[in-house]
Amino acid sequence: MRDVSIIGIGQTPVGEHWDKSLRHLAYDALAAAMRDATIERADALYVGNMLSGEVSAQAHLGALIADFAGLRGIEAVKVEAACASASAAFRQAYIGVASGLQDIVIAVGVEKMTDDIGSKVTAGLASAADAEYEVIHGVSFVALNALIMQRYMYENKLKREDFAGFAINAHANGARNPNAMFQSEISREAFVRSSLIADPIALLDASGMADGAAAVVLCPTEQAREFSSNAIRIKGSAVATDSLSVHDRRDPLWLQAAEDSAQRAYRQAKVGPADLDFFELHDAFTIMAALSLEATGFAERGKGTWLARDGEITLEGKIPICTQGGLKARGHPVGATGLYQIVEAVQQLRGEAGPNQIPNARLGMTQNIGGSGATIITHIFERVNG
Amino acid sequence: MRDVSIIGIGQTPVGEHWDKSLRHLAYDALAAAMRDATIERADALYVGNMLSGEVSAQAHLGALIADFAGLRGIEAVKVEAACASASAAFRQAYIGVASGLQDIVIAVGVEKMTDDIGSKVTAGLASAADAEYEVIHGVSFVALNALIMQRYMYENKLKREDFAGFAINAHANGARNPNAMFQSEISREAFVRSSLIADPIALLDASGMADGAAAVVLCPTEQAREFSSNAIRIKGSAVATDSLSVHDRRDPLWLQAAEDSAQRAYRQAKVGPADLDFFELHDAFTIMAALSLEATGFAERGKGTWLARDGEITLEGKIPICTQGGLKARGHPVGATGLYQIVEAVQQLRGEAGPNQIPNARLGMTQNIGGSGATIITHIFERVNG
Repeated sequence: MRDVSIIGIGQTPVGEHWDKSLRHLAYDALAAAMRDATIERADALYVGNMLSGEVSAQAHLGALIADFAGLRGIEAVKVEAACASASAAFRQAYIGVASGLQDIVIAVGVEKMTDDIGSKVTAGLASAADAEYEVIHGVSFVALNALIMQRYMYENKLKREDFAGFAINAHANGARNPNAMFQSEISREAFVRSSLIADPIALLDASGMADGAAAVVLCPTEQAREFSSNAIRIKGSAVATDSLSVHDRRDPLWLQAAEDSAQRAYRQAKVGPADLDFFELHDAFTIMAALSLEATGFAERGKGTWLARDGEITLEGKIPICTQGGLKARGHPVGATGLYQIVEAVQQLRGEAGPNQIPNARLGMTQNIGGSGATIITHIFERVNG
Repeated sequence: MRDVSIIGIGQTPVGEHWDKSLRHLAYDALAAAMRDATIERADALYVGNMLSGEVSAQAHLGALIADFAGLRGIEAVKVEAACASASAAFRQAYIGVASGLQDIVIAVGVEKMTDDIGSKVTAGLASAADAEYEVIHGVSFVALNALIMQRYMYENKLKREDFAGFAINAHANGARNPNAMFQSEISREAFVRSSLIADPIALLDASGMADGAAAVVLCPTEQAREFSSNAIRIKGSAVATDSLSVHDRRDPLWLQAAEDSAQRAYRQAKVGPADLDFFELHDAFTIMAALSLEATGFAERGKGTWLARDGEITLEGKIPICTQGGLKARGHPVGATGLYQIVEAVQQLRGEAGPNQIPNARLGMTQNIGGSGATIITHIFERVNG
């Protein structure tokens, strides 16, 4: 297997793009990544997307986006793993290059949710859960996460306010990210007063539905220098799965697939949690941030919120998370989110994260969660030059 | 890159499975393939499916099917390329094994269409075409194919009856396939009298919407002997794309992606059309069979129907096609079809094709078409033993 690096990144602002269709959004991110990588062609395109069939009546995004981006004819396919779709597309791009079969490969994640923010999107998001054992009872995707959070608070004797630090940190960083959906800080009081959506999840616990696209270009590390002076190596890559149904997991308060994929990525990269300079985690809801920190080894079981309470997740903390706003403040265009995380990790490792830059960041991790924990994809990236 | 072989196959009958959900269908095929390969675990699962989100309100099939099949925890993802989804999943499984990253990999294609045969399925199938430039004008997927057929007949001075041989051959073979949806022969008169659906496409030009699942197990060729005495090698594998919109192609009567992917597969396998013992092509409509034969080098432009007229596509002909009934008679559960083609190719190469066996078949090709030609995936398989 060949070593693989990222030589180009691109993203659109996250928000409500009523003036752009799916293909235009994808094109904007993809073209930016190709310019950044100084490439004009590619061997393959992997598209991450979850909802285009349900929301836009458009499947078949691989060929569609390849053609629209001027790459007609190349190998192209869509990859789906609910909210982890973009990381899943990136993973296939990584395997394609690592295999020796493809040299220059593009991964793009795209989602368009705000044209129809009503029943189609709510039903579409619920399709990440188990239709026959969960959704049939009327549970929505946010309600499922609320059940997990409720149980977590009960077991660990916590209040909703104990999760405030996650949202405050995300908004503090998002406020300085020009691509973020919500570029405003929030106070602890605002978090506490925030309206409940599904008890105990309130508006400020939850990430925003959004439109957006993000893309990267990959190539073999040994060829990366031809295209880029600041290529970023993929040091670890792993996918793990679990039951879709929360009730069917061995432990509903433990993200087994987060632990499994992180441990595999750690082994591949030969690093541990203490070596990482930052962690782009999947804070679709504040509870998911806490569970992700626990399962990946940054906090003991039940103590994920302590890191937020103690300021350890800020840019100056022990393990900065959501450095460009996370899902909460950057926004969560579901099938694109995983590639936003990866693009932001590359920005940090290149030293291009602007006011949110972590000084001398060399090693970072991303983790993208599909459903309430059924597909979890972890990647570790390393700065090679400089 | 490692050489890759197929060590197990499984399929469900194609038809209306109102008593089984998506996961049960997928499980039946997957478990049969695992038994056939004498394996009890796998490193990864790739699921091909097109319509589960739209029709069954269920996304996230990778984790769902892995868990239901007793493989909880393994890497699993869904791959989509419209009606070519199953071959696209197979292609990713092939790359996973070829890369050295995964040893035992399962690809399963599953589709459930007949629970809701009305508007959801019609709209879902249309999502394979361009929503903004084709479907918005009210064209359905069959209507798009009808436009192509109409033009083809005009250019080549043909009548609808000239396509009869494709449907007659498919039904003749399907009549002897216990897994086929339509196990009955049809006469030339029945074909001619068949009711029009979208002029000039009549009922007997079109494949049947159906439920079904098919699966294969792949592993490195050097390990194949541990599991199977009749492993089948993957000699060629290629994906090519084209414009989704028919009007935007350089030539609406030429499947450029069929030519491109076939030529790449021929080069990789170091063979040509004349070397092949059979060809499982994508006869979603009779016109597609003709175009596929032309683009892959079996017939000159405009002369695809001549092979049907002259009996060259039957089991005794120069290039047998649809040896187990093809999409027309076996049925076309869209996101599973590519793996039915591959399972049937393996049956032929193992000598397990029953009354439809081609004597001493050693080399076969499959071709799976997404949309009206926008994603075309070609594979070439070879018998190694015996």
